[in-house]
Amino acid sequence: MAILSEVPGSVRPVDETSRTREATRLYIDSAERRDWQRLSDLLTEDMVYEMPQSRERIRGRSAFLTFNKEYPGDWHLQVRRIVADGRHAAAWIDGRVGTEHQDACVWLEFSDDGLISRIVDYWPEPYDPPPGREHLVERW
Amino acid sequence: MAILSEVPGSVRPVDETSRTREATRLYIDSAERRDWQRLSDLLTEDMVYEMPQSRERIRGRSAFLTFNKEYPGDWHLQVRRIVADGRHAAAWIDGRVGTEHQDACVWLEFSDDGLISRIVDYWPEPYDPPPGREHLVERW
Repeated sequence: MAILSEVPGSVRPVDETSRTREATRLYIDSAERRDWQRLSDLLTEDMVYEMPQSRERIRGRSAFLTFNKEYPGDWHLQVRRIVADGRHAAAWIDGRVGTEHQDACVWLEFSDDGLISRIVDYWPEPYDPPPGREHLVERW
Repeated sequence: MAILSEVPGSVRPVDETSRTREATRLYIDSAERRDWQRLSDLLTEDMVYEMPQSRERIRGRSAFLTFNKEYPGDWHLQVRRIVADGRHAAAWIDGRVGTEHQDACVWLEFSDDGLISRIVDYWPEPYDPPPGREHLVERW
């Protein structure tokens, strides 16, 4: 299996959470490197990708790969944190397009055989704090 | 310890990830119930709360509790998913204020003794999809 072969010392059996954690790391890394074959190898054929903020859904690995290949701009992704738990993971991403920065929160689900079956992406945008809590907060 | 006593069958030792998962669940539940004492018991005294979208930071359990107590509106929180991994967790929340709905992505860090030491909250807002990807997506 492609995922396991890239885990250092993967001769020993790898537990589900470790496999999920590593596949999540490879997912971000493959997208960042535009390694479409490696990205494809991480996904189930009928995977689903959702962006709840715009209520958009992409069905299937093939359309999802096209979406990534066609995504405009010189975008870059860096992992801030990965949290893995059985067949679920969450990835906190530092995203950049040119000099613009935007964090992402990504929720992943995995199939029986350790492939990504569902991805839900949030891209939270900056906003100004509402008035009334200045006595509690500091700004950066 | 307050957290452990609420885990069913907690006579057996509880591993770090299970403790983190349960404390994350209790954190959301305590806020939803306005059980400020239970919420306080889950936090380190010098915990830090951050909202990167507005670049706001709150230092200390006491100020964070005040922030929650003073937060306007009839707000409600429901867990969509919790992902726990050692001393890290991510919580995907269905938030409501009256009839308005907004999801949240929450990143938590825990201290040696299983208390929440850092919380980073994102509240992604709806947006219209950019043009050019209609051939790949469906809307809901």
